[in-house]
Amino acid sequence: MGKGRLEAFSDGVIAIIITIMVLELKVPAGHSLGALLPLTPVLLSYVLSFGYVGIYWNNHHHMLSISHRVSGAVLWANLHLLFWLSLFPFTTAWMGENHFAAVPTAVYGGVLLMAAIAYWILQQALIAVDGAHSELRRAIGGDWKGKLSPVLYLSGIVLSCWLPWLAQLIYVLAALMWLVPDRRIEGALEHDGGDPHG
Amino acid sequence: MGKGRLEAFSDGVIAIIITIMVLELKVPAGHSLGALLPLTPVLLSYVLSFGYVGIYWNNHHHMLSISHRVSGAVLWANLHLLFWLSLFPFTTAWMGENHFAAVPTAVYGGVLLMAAIAYWILQQALIAVDGAHSELRRAIGGDWKGKLSPVLYLSGIVLSCWLPWLAQLIYVLAALMWLVPDRRIEGALEHDGGDPHG
Amino acid sequence: MGKGRLEAFSDGVIAIIITIMVLELKVPAGHSLGALLPLTPVLLSYVLSFGYVGIYWNNHHHMLSISHRVSGAVLWANLHLLFWLSLFPFTTAWMGENHFAAVPTAVYGGVLLMAAIAYWILQQALIAVDGAHSELRRAIGGDWKGKLSPVLYLSGIVLSCWLPWLAQLIYVLAALMWLVPDRRIEGALEHDGGDPHG
Amino acid sequence: MGKGRLEAFSDGVIAIIITIMVLELKVPAGHSLGALLPLTPVLLSYVLSFGYVGIYWNNHHHMLSISHRVSGAVLWANLHLLFWLSLFPFTTAWMGENHFAAVPTAVYGGVLLMAAIAYWILQQALIAVDGAHSELRRAIGGDWKGKLSPVLYLSGIVLSCWLPWLAQLIYVLAALMWLVPDRRIEGALEHDGGDPHG
Repeated sequence: MGKGRLEAFSDGVIAIIITIMVLELKVPAGHSLGALLPLTPVLLSYVLSFGYVGIYWNNHHHMLSISHRVSGAVLWANLHLLFWLSLFPFTTAWMGENHFAAVPTAVYGGVLLMAAIAYWILQQALIAVDGAHSELRRAIGGDWKGKLSPVLYLSGIVLSCWLPWLAQLIYVLAALMWLVPDRRIEGALEHDGGDPHG
Repeated sequence: MGKGRLEAFSDGVIAIIITIMVLELKVPAGHSLGALLPLTPVLLSYVLSFGYVGIYWNNHHHMLSISHRVSGAVLWANLHLLFWLSLFPFTTAWMGENHFAAVPTAVYGGVLLMAAIAYWILQQALIAVDGAHSELRRAIGGDWKGKLSPVLYLSGIVLSCWLPWLAQLIYVLAALMWLVPDRRIEGALEHDGGDPHG
Repeated sequence: MGKGRLEAFSDGVIAIIITIMVLELKVPAGHSLGALLPLTPVLLSYVLSFGYVGIYWNNHHHMLSISHRVSGAVLWANLHLLFWLSLFPFTTAWMGENHFAAVPTAVYGGVLLMAAIAYWILQQALIAVDGAHSELRRAIGGDWKGKLSPVLYLSGIVLSCWLPWLAQLIYVLAALMWLVPDRRIEGALEHDGGDPHG
Repeated sequence: MGKGRLEAFSDGVIAIIITIMVLELKVPAGHSLGALLPLTPVLLSYVLSFGYVGIYWNNHHHMLSISHRVSGAVLWANLHLLFWLSLFPFTTAWMGENHFAAVPTAVYGGVLLMAAIAYWILQQALIAVDGAHSELRRAIGGDWKGKLSPVLYLSGIVLSCWLPWLAQLIYVLAALMWLVPDRRIEGALEHDGGDPHG
């Protein structure tokens, strides 16, 4: 039951974050196709962030489906993750409205980095509470994606001062890396006889 | 459980989309009835989009009620659908504020078209994961509504350059077509001995 | 299960409606207590509407807790109710920002009236689908509150042209009438051996 | 079931409150790091309020997990709490945009105080409905945190006229006091054989 409400609350917050980002797509004054063109960078950054928030929801969903208990620490680690995710609409709009300029691109990467760290902390808290039998611990294995992501975001932040477009490319590649289905957790579920599609 | 969270997350996003559209109904400066009149086109486009989002929620609800498993592909197909639905508030406001002008009407139809395609992809993903026994596959049958809708939206997009009012009429008719209760799925449920009112 | 998602979706929409109303409480420019004073009418109309939306959520909750089946008609009647509720933030802000002027007060009452009618339609749809054994039908009995409310809103609409403050008073009294706990439904639940606190 | 919907609705409202607060972090015009600096007080007040809303969600979650029944009074006490929480985005933005000036700091404390009182009322309503066997009553024990908080907020309100920074410090300390895990309720659950991590 505790897990259920944690999922419900997280679903709610993530659903709102993913949706209010679109409010930054301000309705243009004119009604020609040309009036729509200046919105392109805002739309592109919206697509990128929609992807990232979707990935977080997806991973959060998988991670909790193979966790069995939640503790006070888990609740706070979860809120900490939601805090960084809640800054996505701001950094997304700032980056889009400034056509992927250097500083907004670095700040965008900074929030990506903090969210990745917060996700890792939540993962550790969930593993700790399930103890030695943690299915999640077995499922994540070496967790190379979780380890590579912060490195990618950090490179993006550093690069954004000189080559903001390369930073963007790195953010896109990091997202695509997560889009590839994660066989580890689905595999763990199948071995356990659970619903393999979580 | 996976299905439950997919439904809960989709409900959350769709609930927010349907509700933030109303934020485009900007409070007018004056307090006479005349101050309200200029809002009429915005209100009308809100009513149309409220109907469409309601239809999507309704169909999504029915579709998932007769699906039994979700996969990673389903999760992403669902997010893809939610992405196009999330653009409704923008296109609705743009079309309404420009009194159903040609380009906004075409762009509105374009998002309707993309959402219809995304819905179809999600439907196929759900059928694929349930395999040969898919209740959903039997229930949708020839799926003439699903096949006719994109054609209607396409005609609307093409027509909007010359006869935007006709495009609007087509969008309204396509919505009404969906409002008529879908006996197929309810019938399938009844044959299965499930709750016929899903 | 269908009922569960109907409740979840309605909860989501009502939760968003009740919360985005507060966005009309625009942060004032100054930082003195005097800068807060002009917000008083907006705050008062917010309190009134918060009460109304709370009442609708409460009654919706009770009504569905003693309904057993939902149909396509129920889904649409529910969306119709949510549509009128979704106009509350608009009419609330318009009425508050214009210090309860005549026309905004009448329009506010008009939306109250339409929501009351939509609620009645939903109630009838729920009774129809449960048929002769409808617990809801027994529970609402003479439904004097449901019958009196539209009359009160109508009087408010008519009166608002001459005595807007009296219309406001009527809206407040109608809300207070609903705040008094409804023993009928709780009683029905108790007779049924269900959880009397539903 | 009644409890389930109360939790779901509260989760929805709290999720929206915690998320729309971030909309006050207005995207700055420039794209330098300097353009971000003026947002610091708004960000800080957002962090504080995010913490408070998180604490309320957390405590609400724990409180309901050891309550067994809900009544009409509970529903209204809950809405009353949500009302005060819904004012957080407003007071947070007002305080942040005015760099923690005296009056906004006092008003912020006033809403904290009212929310604390509303929480206490909800707690009493939940204890009353579960009667003599109330697990919640045993769990909260002396409830020193619940008793100390209003005193702290009151001191903050009074102090804000002379030493607004001290009022802020008190608000921060009161939040930190709640962040320390509450062993009482988790302990009660463990004695009861329930899930100790609720």
